[in-house]
Amino acid sequence: MADLKQELLRTAHAVQHFIEQDSFPAQVFPELLRNAVWDYPLRGGKRLRPALLLWTCGMTGGHCETALPAAAAVEIFHNWTLVHDDIIDRDEVRRGQPTAHIQLRDSAKVRFGGSPEKAAAYGISFAILAGDVQQAWAVHTLMRLSENHVHDSVVLALVRRMQTELNRVLISGEALDVEFELHNPDTVSKEDIFRMISGKTSALLRYSMQAGAAIALQSTDFDSPLQQDIGNFAENLGLAFQIQDDLLGLYGDFKTFGKPIASDFQEAKPTILYREAMDRMNSVQRQELKSMLHLPFYGEEEIQKLRTMIHDCGAEDAVRKLSEDFSGKALAILERFPKNQYRDLLKDLTLMLIGRNI
Amino acid sequence: MADLKQELLRTAHAVQHFIEQDSFPAQVFPELLRNAVWDYPLRGGKRLRPALLLWTCGMTGGHCETALPAAAAVEIFHNWTLVHDDIIDRDEVRRGQPTAHIQLRDSAKVRFGGSPEKAAAYGISFAILAGDVQQAWAVHTLMRLSENHVHDSVVLALVRRMQTELNRVLISGEALDVEFELHNPDTVSKEDIFRMISGKTSALLRYSMQAGAAIALQSTDFDSPLQQDIGNFAENLGLAFQIQDDLLGLYGDFKTFGKPIASDFQEAKPTILYREAMDRMNSVQRQELKSMLHLPFYGEEEIQKLRTMIHDCGAEDAVRKLSEDFSGKALAILERFPKNQYRDLLKDLTLMLIGRNI
Repeated sequence: MADLKQELLRTAHAVQHFIEQDSFPAQVFPELLRNAVWDYPLRGGKRLRPALLLWTCGMTGGHCETALPAAAAVEIFHNWTLVHDDIIDRDEVRRGQPTAHIQLRDSAKVRFGGSPEKAAAYGISFAILAGDVQQAWAVHTLMRLSENHVHDSVVLALVRRMQTELNRVLISGEALDVEFELHNPDTVSKEDIFRMISGKTSALLRYSMQAGAAIALQSTDFDSPLQQDIGNFAENLGLAFQIQDDLLGLYGDFKTFGKPIASDFQEAKPTILYREAMDRMNSVQRQELKSMLHLPFYGEEEIQKLRTMIHDCGAEDAVRKLSEDFSGKALAILERFPKNQYRDLLKDLTLMLIGRNI
Repeated sequence: MADLKQELLRTAHAVQHFIEQDSFPAQVFPELLRNAVWDYPLRGGKRLRPALLLWTCGMTGGHCETALPAAAAVEIFHNWTLVHDDIIDRDEVRRGQPTAHIQLRDSAKVRFGGSPEKAAAYGISFAILAGDVQQAWAVHTLMRLSENHVHDSVVLALVRRMQTELNRVLISGEALDVEFELHNPDTVSKEDIFRMISGKTSALLRYSMQAGAAIALQSTDFDSPLQQDIGNFAENLGLAFQIQDDLLGLYGDFKTFGKPIASDFQEAKPTILYREAMDRMNSVQRQELKSMLHLPFYGEEEIQKLRTMIHDCGAEDAVRKLSEDFSGKALAILERFPKNQYRDLLKDLTLMLIGRNI
């Protein structure tokens, strides 16, 4: 795994450098908006999507450097969706720092004074606009592929897929997630949950990897068997990862997971884990599980009770198996590609993503 | 002027039809988000930006039908910025109907019940996402130029300008306008106000007209004397129009203007008219004008007092002259183009836009 971590770091540095050097945000004004446009894309993080893109480019015979603008573009794309998500979810912390709208609110308070309400409204307004500019920045960065002699037809096809397929599917997934909050969690079907995950998580992984292959092959054919395989790998990886995340949300620990344990239950979020448990329980058990939603506080006792209930009905094992099925499918697809260092990296990355310590 | 109105109607119908036939929103889900994505672009309106684009294409020797996807694209682009603007400005009415976030709030109430706060938050969340999807829809629609055999290089150049120049300048203008609210209006310079207008209004007019010419000429050269002329025409038209709008906001009547008279003063908005008056007044008059800001109600008496103050110091005439200077410059640039029916339409449109009844 030493190589994987080293290569992830190397990718992260290359992407960070590329984004830092890009002149797009320099002409955004006023200053607070410009700062907000730079902020998330430069906060770092694991840069998983760029790694998936670059390594798929390498695995299918391309030069990773050629694809670097696209790698930066998917990272910027990911970040604009986070800026808007954070407003929508009223989150206050992202990667250990205040979220965009909170940061902007606080900057406005310092710079302009005025009432807290005005500063809060300003923070949200500027965060909406920052995400809007970042969406355009992602397209701008993607088009810098032309500087690396990627054919116009390939650049056009990648822009079209980003703005037609990716945006529509990803935002629809996000919207479904928002709408779930208004539903009784029992009325949300597994199918809808999978659809939401596929949009919110898998779509960008799929886009990233297929872009890497399209650049390597200088091809606009996304229906080829190779691109279908890559798309299916990404789809399965996304589902495995998200279901693993549900499990971590209950069976993980705060330090690894980064969010309070059982928060999905506190928010009464329909997850595959919750649905699986409900499907396996009798009506008395169901009532008991439902009484554990929306509690004001989840301490050791409540968490342990939830863990036991969901384990005892068989849902924990079933969902763990489901995640393994998806990741198994992903790894099997990978085997169809000729073995090289990039295929190995993608395999190791998959194992890392789904094997996070529980 | 009969021809102008007829041609505007014809353009509006063509754009409406093109947008209705486009399949992009059909795959957006859930249903309420899909409805919101369709909503503004289909609400109609004068379709001025498409008309500017199509007629510039015609004036420079192109076929208007070829440019129709770009005409629809600038209209969709305009509308996504309105959806986000309406959230930011907390506006409740747009073209005689509820704004997107209000419409979504009310739909959520009917469909899901729940508290008014939840419905309001849902309305804002979905309106943010609707604008996000519409921004991508604009790019998608622009790229449909390829179906009309516009060269890949021209399509790429137009996407690049939309996402690099237009988005950045327009959103910066919007952000400046938002930030003005936090400033004392006396500290905002005329230069900043012009910069804001140039971003919020002129940038999309410029983009629309230059796109029309680029399509007609199948050229990616936006630095040519012809494109410079077109850009300058649009810049001057936007400034003339916006300054005229400031005047209408005080000297117009509610029916023509569509908004309450003196609302700029109620909101203490820095406008060219306000700045010009302040620059011409002595300190006593200035204090008096400042005491007329932020009033809870502007009746006949208050409006008349403001009109007189701003007239007597010479600001009304000076600003009227300024608007005429900008429109005069625009019309002079137009004369450089060979006379044809489209140049005549652009001239009549300019006269209509700046000669609105005062």
